[in-house]
Amino acid sequence: MTKILAVNAGSSTLKWKLFSMPEETVIASGLVDRLNLPGSIFKVKLADGTKHEETQDNITNKLAAAMVLTRLKSYGILKHLSEISGVGHRIVAGGEIFKDSAVITPLVLKQIKALKDYAPLHNPVQAYYIEVFEQLLPDAQEVAVFDTSLYAQMPEMNYLYGIPYEYYENFGARKYGAHGTSHRYVAHRTAEILGKPLDQLKLITLHLGSGSSVTAFKDGHALDTSMGFTPLAGVMMGTRSGDIDPSLVAYLAEKLDVKMDKMIDILNHKSGLLGVSGLSPDQRDLEQTQDERPQSKLALDMFVNRVVQYVGSYTAELGGLDAVVFTAGSGENGIAMRQAIADKLGYLGIAIDPAKNDFRGEEHIVSPDDNRVKVLVVPTDEELMIVRDVMRLSAH
Amino acid sequence: MTKILAVNAGSSTLKWKLFSMPEETVIASGLVDRLNLPGSIFKVKLADGTKHEETQDNITNKLAAAMVLTRLKSYGILKHLSEISGVGHRIVAGGEIFKDSAVITPLVLKQIKALKDYAPLHNPVQAYYIEVFEQLLPDAQEVAVFDTSLYAQMPEMNYLYGIPYEYYENFGARKYGAHGTSHRYVAHRTAEILGKPLDQLKLITLHLGSGSSVTAFKDGHALDTSMGFTPLAGVMMGTRSGDIDPSLVAYLAEKLDVKMDKMIDILNHKSGLLGVSGLSPDQRDLEQTQDERPQSKLALDMFVNRVVQYVGSYTAELGGLDAVVFTAGSGENGIAMRQAIADKLGYLGIAIDPAKNDFRGEEHIVSPDDNRVKVLVVPTDEELMIVRDVMRLSAH
Repeated sequence: MTKILAVNAGSSTLKWKLFSMPEETVIASGLVDRLNLPGSIFKVKLADGTKHEETQDNITNKLAAAMVLTRLKSYGILKHLSEISGVGHRIVAGGEIFKDSAVITPLVLKQIKALKDYAPLHNPVQAYYIEVFEQLLPDAQEVAVFDTSLYAQMPEMNYLYGIPYEYYENFGARKYGAHGTSHRYVAHRTAEILGKPLDQLKLITLHLGSGSSVTAFKDGHALDTSMGFTPLAGVMMGTRSGDIDPSLVAYLAEKLDVKMDKMIDILNHKSGLLGVSGLSPDQRDLEQTQDERPQSKLALDMFVNRVVQYVGSYTAELGGLDAVVFTAGSGENGIAMRQAIADKLGYLGIAIDPAKNDFRGEEHIVSPDDNRVKVLVVPTDEELMIVRDVMRLSAH
Repeated sequence: MTKILAVNAGSSTLKWKLFSMPEETVIASGLVDRLNLPGSIFKVKLADGTKHEETQDNITNKLAAAMVLTRLKSYGILKHLSEISGVGHRIVAGGEIFKDSAVITPLVLKQIKALKDYAPLHNPVQAYYIEVFEQLLPDAQEVAVFDTSLYAQMPEMNYLYGIPYEYYENFGARKYGAHGTSHRYVAHRTAEILGKPLDQLKLITLHLGSGSSVTAFKDGHALDTSMGFTPLAGVMMGTRSGDIDPSLVAYLAEKLDVKMDKMIDILNHKSGLLGVSGLSPDQRDLEQTQDERPQSKLALDMFVNRVVQYVGSYTAELGGLDAVVFTAGSGENGIAMRQAIADKLGYLGIAIDPAKNDFRGEEHIVSPDDNRVKVLVVPTDEELMIVRDVMRLSAH
């Protein structure tokens, strides 16, 4: 029995979970929010349900990491820091280098930093946490878990774009995908639930949250995914446009008289459900207002339709379908949305039994008992996937 | 019995066909190529198979139109120009104004000119031909036939993008589609062949040529289509990228250090099959070289895959499928390509019998006799669709 820490760092947040392995039980978990800002918030939840919360101005990334460890000691969770034998770090961009998770070495760390162009808000801060935890836990084995590794081995015809081939060779212009750690967890869990090896399942996983993506699995690998060179592509999202005519990028920039970086910023942060509805990126707000506000209903209809399109597209690519899985915020909690998507996909063999679908955030099979294509809801757990990779790749 | 002229003007070509109506027989057809350039070529083919060809420098648009009419007289096809009672003009962009073809009035002409932003290479020259033929054939009824009218009544959730709603209201940023006259002809012809009303068919039409698009029909109308705000979007084409991550437009422009209009030009003219293969935009060239050149094979595989994705996507949106139809250059002649697409779509009920598929440019049902989903090849005929609309909308 050993303790492994999963570190899931965003641009201004630090999510973490401490697991007891190999039992995979959560000992403690927490979130540091508003990092480097006035009123940083430090939250911890222990296995017995106890919650701690502190507020302090301008908690830095380095301090946040140190606080996690010192508080775990002061709450009596750890006697010595050396009890933590491994740390797994979620890394957003692994480019074409990392086709699997990797034990941290000086070279790996350098490569993660060098990939900052592909995830400017994430890779640098995630690399920084690797260095910080190396200092704080010198005896722990550190492992990098890449969101993109799932997609590194997709068929060339799926990861390449219809652009000059040398743009791939010279500038790395290809589909890298995103949310890979989530899709990977959910796919493996689905195989367990269905009692079949993943490599014998034709599977579509729907990670539907504020960012949304769709991934197709075949022969145990990702066959295709909706996110592209960046997480802007694919289905419409909370604030992201998803796929649009590439000509529109130039046309709108000219009409709005804005520079390209501002235009891409609009497509990332002012578009999607927020842009169409004119109200909110949150599906719950749109569901509550859809009877009075046609634009709220329109935004929800478009979202459902874009997901339906991708499921159809990937069912065709897979040449069949054994299961469809909903996960992430909306996927786990959006009862009406799940039903609306499934109701449009009957021709592909997909169905949801409304009586089985009436819950939020739990693991269930929601298709009718005799349905050949299984439909599931599987709450995602990126941190569990991370610590499993730490166990797999280091000498535990 | 009367004679109707179909005028199909491109940016540097004038295609035309003279029909005897209502029998729908072609009396003569022709092409003027290399307009306004040295070595303009003027070709005519008569119903009896006679062919005429002339070369002359710098034939202007106005002269081309006049030559068509004077040659028809000198070949003995027409005694008097007044025998032509109607002229139908293909117009590329009808915006949101034209939901059907329209009899030309001064207002209609003005509106066609005003829509030049949506088709800068086409609408101005097409409007000019309306004026020229008005002068040459003052008694003929002129009708404008819009490629976009088929798509003007798509559901809002399909023609809108996931961008701020006011960009649609203020700048007309929506999906307008393309190739509508071709898809419309093929859909109606398919309904005739299958002996069912179009409004009872769930239909996908594949216009696959140097430009390619996919349209879904339901209840007699277009439900969705792959081309977007411009004809750059959708499946990969001869030289056009089709769908890409919108972020790539900005990223590549920066890496290549080119302005936006140059970048969009690259995506329109240097991408697609040409860009990926590094050889040619023509599928025949790629088929011939695919055994020695991996990039030729890759480009073909990507093209097939993108069409497969759209068929899957639209089958899901349609909630069923009665027929799939191939048309245009590659669709009518690409035997191997048709087979490759159908072979990947078995789960959706699509199949092609190789023995029935071994022909080019003819109208056939190619699915096995007992297949529920019918697969057809239907050579397109935009000019016939145009003269039918002239007959329908004017007092013939």
